[in-house]
Amino acid sequence: MRILLVGASGIVGQAVAGALAPHHELIRAGRHSGDVRVDLTDMASIERMYAQVGQLDAVVTAAGSVHFGELVNTTPAQFMSGLQDKLMGQVNAVIAGIAHLRDGGSFTLTSGILAEEPIKQGTNATTVNAAIEGFVRAASTELPRGLRINAVSATVLTEALDAYGPYFPGFEAVDGARVGQVYRRSVEGVLTGRVYKIWE
Amino acid sequence: MRILLVGASGIVGQAVAGALAPHHELIRAGRHSGDVRVDLTDMASIERMYAQVGQLDAVVTAAGSVHFGELVNTTPAQFMSGLQDKLMGQVNAVIAGIAHLRDGGSFTLTSGILAEEPIKQGTNATTVNAAIEGFVRAASTELPRGLRINAVSATVLTEALDAYGPYFPGFEAVDGARVGQVYRRSVEGVLTGRVYKIWE
Repeated sequence: MRILLVGASGIVGQAVAGALAPHHELIRAGRHSGDVRVDLTDMASIERMYAQVGQLDAVVTAAGSVHFGELVNTTPAQFMSGLQDKLMGQVNAVIAGIAHLRDGGSFTLTSGILAEEPIKQGTNATTVNAAIEGFVRAASTELPRGLRINAVSATVLTEALDAYGPYFPGFEAVDGARVGQVYRRSVEGVLTGRVYKIWE
Repeated sequence: MRILLVGASGIVGQAVAGALAPHHELIRAGRHSGDVRVDLTDMASIERMYAQVGQLDAVVTAAGSVHFGELVNTTPAQFMSGLQDKLMGQVNAVIAGIAHLRDGGSFTLTSGILAEEPIKQGTNATTVNAAIEGFVRAASTELPRGLRINAVSATVLTEALDAYGPYFPGFEAVDGARVGQVYRRSVEGVLTGRVYKIWE
């Protein structure tokens, strides 16, 4: 398959690339690196990316940041930033990507364990990840030509423990290699509207 | 209790008012009518509303619109409009309202059945409602001074069938009187982080 991976340089993106690259033609996209550059918060940038890469069999997005901080001190702009970046970035990639996916192609988005398991200062993250899962649930009913859409929701990755470990006390980490395989399952599988959870 | 009801003139708002007004001091707020006027998408307007009404025991929000339309033709601005109106409106009301609620007070937000049951052209609605439920789940862990927060998720109201019936084929409607009682249960109850579902 010809697969576009947005956010290829991130910790999740690297795990996805490790699982997909041996089996597929993988095109890496990112804000600051990759085969093509893209800013998912800018629809014109997304359209340029799709025009550049041509027809695809799958799009995987593993990009987007959210706001962390005490809810009581969060400004509307801070809260919006997570919605604009991680949620709308992936939504934009789907809406613009429909025309560039071959029949039967797929989108695989990234949510995360915080959708269901809140952590300190993580209200924006829970909101954004829950929204992404709602989006996938509904968009799966609307996509034309047999296109599929799923989300992957992982717990903290082993490779991310140095940076994020303190935010996840007592959470079991998962190796990137295992996470990458779940994205592969979504891309090469048959299901749609599914949230693949990698945590208990 | 002293309760602020935002969106009091809507179909859900009227149902909530019917259940709460006989038992409490109810202050009605709305964009175009009510005891106080407020635009929930404007933080300054929200702050003015809270300054005007003084200390409260509960805030109920039953306001906000979402975008309906085919996903493939939805623009980022259209998708954002639902996030800004129904999601951020209620989020803003909570963040600004914390300081105006007495100890042990509560917020009750409005999501809706589409969070889990997508309908045609309803991807924005599902996304927004799922986000509201995520927000409630996480915010409940952050609120100070024993404050509580819940959401109510109703199916289509009997009173709304004339306007929205065709969007909900085969969905069982629920009378506003029953919906109002569920908001009362949230306001006068003990639970927090709960989504009260009024549908099967």
